[in-house]
Parts: sequence; C-alpha cells; structure tokens
Amino acid sequence: MAKAKNILFVMADQLRWDYLSCNGHPHLKTPNIDWLAQNGMRFNRCYVQSPICGPGRMSTYTGRYLLSHGATSNDTPLRIGERTLGEYLREIGMKTILVGKTHMAADLEGMRRLGIDPNGPIGRRIMQCGFDIFEREEGIHPDGPRNPGVSYNKYLAAKGYDGTNPWHTWANSVQTDDGTVHSGWLMGYGGLPARIPEEDSETAFLTRRGIECIEAMGNEPWCIHLSYIKPHWPYIAPAPYHNMYGVDDLVPVVRSEAEKADDHPYYVELKKRRISQSFWPDGHRELVIPAYMGLIKQLDDHFGRILAHLRERELLDSTMIVFTADHGDYLGDHWLGEKDFFHDPSVKVPLLIYDPSSEADALRGKSCDHLVESIDLLPTFVDFAGGCAPSNIVEGRSLLPLVRGRMPADWREFAFSEFDYTWMEAQENLDVPTEDARVFMITDDRWKYILVERFPPILFDLKNDPDELVDLGRDPAYEAVRRRMREGLFCWARRLRQRVTETNEQLLARARSQVQRGVYVGFWNERELETEKRRLGGLAPEK
Amino acid sequence: MAKAKNILFVMADQLRWDYLSCNGHPHLKTPNIDWLAQNGMRFNRCYVQSPICGPGRMSTYTGRYLLSHGATSNDTPLRIGERTLGEYLREIGMKTILVGKTHMAADLEGMRRLGIDPNGPIGRRIMQCGFDIFEREEGIHPDGPRNPGVSYNKYLAAKGYDGTNPWHTWANSVQTDDGTVHSGWLMGYGGLPARIPEEDSETAFLTRRGIECIEAMGNEPWCIHLSYIKPHWPYIAPAPYHNMYGVDDLVPVVRSEAEKADDHPYYVELKKRRISQSFWPDGHRELVIPAYMGLIKQLDDHFGRILAHLRERELLDSTMIVFTADHGDYLGDHWLGEKDFFHDPSVKVPLLIYDPSSEADALRGKSCDHLVESIDLLPTFVDFAGGCAPSNIVEGRSLLPLVRGRMPADWREFAFSEFDYTWMEAQENLDVPTEDARVFMITDDRWKYILVERFPPILFDLKNDPDELVDLGRDPAYEAVRRRMREGLFCWARRLRQRVTETNEQLLARARSQVQRGVYVGFWNERELETEKRRLGGLAPEK
Repeated sequence: MAKAKNILFVMADQLRWDYLSCNGHPHLKTPNIDWLAQNGMRFNRCYVQSPICGPGRMSTYTGRYLLSHGATSNDTPLRIGERTLGEYLREIGMKTILVGKTHMAADLEGMRRLGIDPNGPIGRRIMQCGFDIFEREEGIHPDGPRNPGVSYNKYLAAKGYDGTNPWHTWANSVQTDDGTVHSGWLMGYGGLPARIPEEDSETAFLTRRGIECIEAMGNEPWCIHLSYIKPHWPYIAPAPYHNMYGVDDLVPVVRSEAEKADDHPYYVELKKRRISQSFWPDGHRELVIPAYMGLIKQLDDHFGRILAHLRERELLDSTMIVFTADHGDYLGDHWLGEKDFFHDPSVKVPLLIYDPSSEADALRGKSCDHLVESIDLLPTFVDFAGGCAPSNIVEGRSLLPLVRGRMPADWREFAFSEFDYTWMEAQENLDVPTEDARVFMITDDRWKYILVERFPPILFDLKNDPDELVDLGRDPAYEAVRRRMREGLFCWARRLRQRVTETNEQLLARARSQVQRGVYVGFWNERELETEKRRLGGLAPEK
Repeated sequence: MAKAKNILFVMADQLRWDYLSCNGHPHLKTPNIDWLAQNGMRFNRCYVQSPICGPGRMSTYTGRYLLSHGATSNDTPLRIGERTLGEYLREIGMKTILVGKTHMAADLEGMRRLGIDPNGPIGRRIMQCGFDIFEREEGIHPDGPRNPGVSYNKYLAAKGYDGTNPWHTWANSVQTDDGTVHSGWLMGYGGLPARIPEEDSETAFLTRRGIECIEAMGNEPWCIHLSYIKPHWPYIAPAPYHNMYGVDDLVPVVRSEAEKADDHPYYVELKKRRISQSFWPDGHRELVIPAYMGLIKQLDDHFGRILAHLRERELLDSTMIVFTADHGDYLGDHWLGEKDFFHDPSVKVPLLIYDPSSEADALRGKSCDHLVESIDLLPTFVDFAGGCAPSNIVEGRSLLPLVRGRMPADWREFAFSEFDYTWMEAQENLDVPTEDARVFMITDDRWKYILVERFPPILFDLKNDPDELVDLGRDPAYEAVRRRMREGLFCWARRLRQRVTETNEQLLARARSQVQRGVYVGFWNERELETEKRRLGGLAPEK
C-alpha cells in the first residue's frame, strides 16, 4: 500500500523574508528552515495579499483576494459560505487540522441568519476557519479582546504560573533588576528575557502540540497547519534567545533622508504612526531587533525538532513541507514600524516548499524568481492532494508545476496586494471615507505601483532601486509605466471571481445545451427549429 | 392609528422603456401605467445592471452589481448568504411577498454544504429568493427545464385545457386555418391569437393572484412583488390583443447601413445571432411587434385593475407603487433581437415611482433625468419602510430624496451594467475563455462607453447621437473621453462591496477603541501608554 500523502503547512507570524540565512541574512543562522531550501524550492518573490495578519490569512485560507473574500480588516468576520482550505482538502480525503493561529473571526451574524448552530458539526468548522482543531491559539493582547481561557494559559496555570492571564504576565512580561514586572508589549523592554523558561514559551508549546498532532494522525492523509504566534511582537524572547544577538548582528537600516522628507500625504501618515516613531531614536532598533532575531532563532530550533520528528517517523518521503509567513516587519526601514504597507520588508514573505515527490528531484535546492502569491498555497495543496481547486472561486494557482520544473507558459505577469486602512488614524487624519480608505499594490518583474485612493500613486523601480528608496509616482518621466501598471490593476479588479456557485465547466455545459433543453430563441418557424435540432443530433436526418 | 405603509413593486419582463405612452410611444396608449407618471415621478434614465433576466434581477433583489453578487448568467445560483429584499424589509417589520417571476436559482450546493434544509423555515426563503410565496411563476420553455407542474399549469388543467403542459400547448400556442397547432415560440406565428381566452392568459392569471394577495394581507405593512412574465416572448397575445395593432402603429426601426457593415468582432457576433437575424427580413418586425404591443396593452389594462382595486380599498394614500422592467427588447433596432447588449432599447428600462407621502406632492407628474440604476430600488424600499440599507453591502442608493425633491449633492456621475456572454455562441466563435467573456458598460450624462474584453471599446455620444448609431470607440479623436470613462469603470471595479459581515460604523468603532480594548502597538514604555490612556479618558489625570 502506498504511503498516505501529507502536508505540513508551517506559518510564522510577522517573519521578514530576509531574516533567514537561506534568504541572505548575514548573522542570523536558520539551518533547519534552510534545510527546506536545500531540499526543496525557495521562492524569491512571494507576496502576501495584504500585509496584515487577518486579511492576508483569509486570502491564504480561501485562495482569494481581499476584494473577493471581503474580510479586509483584522477581525472582520469571514463571510459565511467562503470556502476554506479544510473544505477543499477534506472533500478529497485529507484531514485538515489546525495547531496554532488563524486570526479568523467567524461570521456569527451570518450563522444566525442562516440558522446554523455554531456548536453543530458544520458550525464548529465554520467557527474555526474550516479547520478541525487540535490546538487553536490566537495570541492575546494584555487586557484585550482575546479569551484568556485559551489552552496556552491553561497550560501555564497548570505549571503553576499565577494570575488570570499568565500568558501576559509571565510569557509576555519581563522583570527589571529592581524586581518590578513590566509588560513586554512596551518595546523598551526588548533586551530582557521573558519571565518563563524557554520550554514553557509559546513557540515551545506549539511545537510540542504540533508533534503530538502528527503522532495523533493515523495512516490517512493529513494536512496540519502549524501556525506559530512568533516572531510577532511583543519583542520578548525567553532566555537564552533574549541576548543571543547584539548590535553587531544587525543589518543596516534601509532609509533615506529623502524618504524622511517625502510629503506624500499617506506616507506622511505612516511615518507619523507611534509604531514607526518608536523605531526612529538611536538605540531603539538596537534593543528591539536582537530580540526579534532571538525569536526567529528559537523558531528555527523548534522547526528542527519537527523535522527530526518527521524523519524519525519516516514521513519525509511522503510529506510536503511548506514554510512561510503572513507578512513581514519594517523594523524601522523606510522610517516605518510594523507592516501595513507595501515595501518588500512588509509585503514579501519567505516561502519554501519541500515536495517529497520524485518529480521535484530535478529542482531541489533551486530558487524561483517568478511572482507567486500566498493565495497560491491553497491550490498547491489541493493539487498535491490529488484534486483541482475550482478556478471560478480560487484566484491563486498551483505552484507544483514550478516546483516540478514544468513552468506554465501563461504564468502571471503581476502580483497584487491590498490594504484597508479604515482602522488606522490615517483614515481620520486624512478625512477619507471608508470606501476610499484603500491602498492597492501591483508589481511585476521590474516595477511596483501603489494606488492610494484620493492621493498620488507611488512607484518603485525594483531593478535600479531594489531598496525602494525613490518614489517615482509623481515623476512625469514615468507616466507610461504608471499607466501600464494601472491598466494591470484595472484588469485584475474586473476579473475577480464571484461566480462561486457554478464552475466554468458547469456554465458552459448548460449554455451549450439550450436547444436540447427546450430553450428556443429566435426560431422563425418549424423548419428552422428542426434543422437546428438535426444539426445538434437531436433528430434523425431529414429524408 | 396610522395606516400601515405598503409597497407594490410591479415588474414587467422585457418591456422596452419607450413602449409606454408616458415615455413617448406615439401609438401604444398605456393610460393606467401613465397614471403613475402623472401622480408620481417618471425616471428617464434608469439602467439595469445586466440586460438579461436572471443577473439583472439578482442585482435588483440584492441591491448589488453582478461582480458583487456573482450570479452572472441566467440560472446561475444566487450564492447563499446574499441578502435579498425580503430579508431587509422583514427585519423592519414588512412582509415581503412574491406573486410571479424572479428568475432566481437557489444555491442548493451551498445549502448542502452548510447543512440547511431547503424545506425548513430558513431554507424555504432561500429557495424563493428571500420572498414569501403567494404565487411563484417563472415562465416555462416548451420542452424545457422549468417545472410544468407549476400552478398556472394546474390552473389551466383545472379549467379543462388538456395535455401535460397546457401553458405551452394552449397559452403559448396558436392554431392556423388548417387546424394545426403551432408553438408560439416560433416567431413567424406572431400575428395569431393564443389558444386561450384573454381571462385565462398569464397576465390575467397573475393579476387575479396579485389582487387576491392584496386581499390576503392584513393591516401589517406589506411589500408585494407582482412580477409579470410578459411582454417577454413568445410574442403571442390572446384575442383581442393579438391584432389590436398593425403595421401603421410601428415606430420606425433604428438601424443604419454603417452599423450593418460595422466589423467590431463582438458586434458582428451579436448581429449573427439567430434572434437578431429573425428581425432582418421585410415583414418580420411587422408581424412580431404588433403582438408585442398587444401584450403591453393587455398588461396596462390589467395594471388598471390593480390600481382600481387599491383605490377601492383606500390603499392609494399608504401604498408606494413602483413600475419597472428587468430589461428591454431590441426588436430589430441596431440589427439585433432580444436584449443582451447595451443600447438603450435593451439596457434602459421604464421606472415610475408613486410615493403616497405628502413630501412627494411637490414633484408629482415630474420626470427625472438623473442616472438611476435598478439596484436603487432595494434601498428605496427599505428607506420607505423606515430603515436604511447597509452601505457596506448595498451598492444602490435610495431614490426617495429624488422623489421628494431633496436631490443629494453627491448623486452618482455614472451608471453601470455588465454582461457575461459565456453562454452565447460568441464565446465559442471568438474563442474567448470564460474569465474574459465579459462586457461592461459605463454611462454618464453624455457618453456611453462599452468595454469588451480582448476587443476594442465601443463609445456613443448620447448628446449628438441619441440613437447610438455611430460607434466612436476606435476614433482617435475621442481618446480623452474614452480614458475618462475607463477611469470611471476602474474606480467602480475596485470599490465593489464585499465586506458584507461588518458595517462601516462597526469597523470604525472597533478601530477607534484599540487601546481601550488592550491592543497596544508601538508604545515604548509605561509613560507613553499612560499618557495615551489619559488622552483617551481611560485614566484619571496625572497629578
């Protein structure tokens, strides 16, 4: 009996594409993640469909752009009926299990309207973004909206950490020399270790749960989405990762005085954000980034444990392993913090695909410069599992042909990303109504064009300015380039896929059988109708 | 006690905007429909969102464009979860009842996936496009896919008309002098009367059911959608309407030799259609159009009965009456038959609104030249019923301000319509994949621009060429106009509303309370956080 095929789909949160040694970081060594690059394919240009957790993930889990799935802000519920990864894979016999984060909010109002019990078998999956749950952890804010009763808190409580929210007060907090406890959410405490030993940290907890989940799977095919909370802020790492890196390990900041002076109204708003300003003073990046690097190093060590476990269980020859992130982190580049905009440190993510199939052997260790998008993962997984994602719904494309060296002639020319800034202060400050608080990115093999509703566009020449320091959006010399990119965006916008209830094939079959189904349009008399029926093979030939 | 407010929403199928005397037809007198124009407001430029039954109606019933609701072809199921008129009105206490046609196909597969019983209380409404049913009649094709067991067939059977499908063999058939029976679907029999007396015809049947429905309503507010099958083909009218009009009553055909010679590939395909060709030979229009006019005259007579009934029941002072159509009919104009394209005879529809409120008194009998769309009806009805359609979902706008003389300063500049021609032979002949078998129309107060994917655009100057005979789409002199219209279409496409799970207000409220909800982003230390909390009023002032 052939071994069941599996998929291990690992996602890191807020991991910059260039903070891996396989992607060129000079000081941060990530040998375990690099193993995927050596034995699989490394994608150099993978763009997320929105540089923010929730909306981008909803694209990944549905295979659709924001303008299609509609969950354009963090915690905007994913509309009921939007099909997700688990639904597609389960249909072709693959269990689809979550261990970790989704950032999905369920459409409770939609469920109420349609009379779906959130606790019933169908409702439960809708509540969980289509996954079956082994462990769901969404991260928590210190006093915030996420439920402190989640299992990582229960785990910490069982280990003896006190308080109602030990996730915050222990795992995400630090203690200064004077004995006082400080929230790790305050960036100034970045150099200090978390108040828990490494083995009790979030990354260690999710790794253990991930391994337990692999163990719990039988011999049926599975897809496990192991979705880490880290290296997303708070920028607090447990010892020894908190001080494993120092100032000498930082790569230089990418920003220019011209950028600082740039008066594009939307960019000005981004630079004014608190999270951006927090990266400006001397010494701030130097405190935060080593902690961020420590969190990544810790993640790499844990990913090594996962790999070792798969090897030990002899699953490496039957398991596709995919490693990616939901977006990056500016870390002060371009005078910005967080993500939320379209420079590469924010919108480009690492993507490594290890395909165990022999068809992938020829290209192991190779990298790919073609434009790929996070929405490609869903159809890739469905393809690997033996199915085909419906092209009337899913807007991404399977990457298996690329991984297996059968590059399609019609591969995409453009990649797209979107952002809804209704939730940002910029919306108030610029006095832009919700419908227009939107920013769109389109990029090709040379240019990146950013459409900012109501304001001038932004344009980067990625060939001559790979660091994206010079905005050509208002330079008259580039009008033709801007027009071409704008046309690409227009073409994209009017081709979004909402005919989700009928495949192209179903529609065509119905269309081509109109006369056979008795739909007679425009026939003048019996003779015309009989002739047409005969032509279609519905009648015996005329004698 | 104030009288309950009601809405009578009358729709004709395939009724050209200019085939009413109030809209200028010189020979066809429609005094009953004209009553609405005299006592309400007549709209001169109402465009349907697709010039074909199903997709256009799904726009009317959802208040959304095709690219939003996704039901782009006839009988493409309306995606589960798309909210319809009945859902909005019922929420604010108005019964919403169907008498007649919707052309809606239910999303059975979506219901199966979500575990919704089509026969349960929620499923039943989903099956019926959100309406409660008094009488649903969708028309039938002679041997076709619609259920011959519908109640009009049952009615005919009870009256003694024999056969399995008396709708076809009696109501839609004719008898020639030699005694043979012919299908009225064959256009050549247009001059002959239907094989039933007028009182048993579809229009008479639906009128009676409409009046019975009004009678069955209690004192609660109601919206009755009285949706006639006619004057949609078959072009067969019952006596005396079959020969009430003759060749002298026809308005001249609108077509030119230049149009006939026009080699635009998509227009060529439209001209090649059987239904187009059937209108070309001498004598063909002369046979078909009088029957079409007879069906309209019959409809007007029946609408008079409805009005008389409302008057008798003293409901005219509390009932809004809206009369419109789902699209027009080329009838040979521009060398075309049927609808399916964007000349005014096809895409512009009659719209008459009688608002009983005293606020509407000032403008009774006036007409309105502003651009309105069929998607405006849903928010108009919700507005009349005392609610407000959610602007994150509904793309139309209430017309009540126009009817009541409070024209909004920001009324729309453009109207839009869309067409998916996957089901037409043009798709095969032009070898265009489904994704590109799309045509878009944008019009403003002067121009009409038609984007045909993969082919040149089409442009009409409605001021200098109101008959739309001269295509300026390839004329270099109009490049600036085309660019402006194209930009309007681009702006429209990227602003379609898919964030259906959260209103703008909900999103803004959530966004503005991030810190209060414990979401701390970018604070460097306690002092910064406390200062911000104090600013937001969450802490006592610092002493």
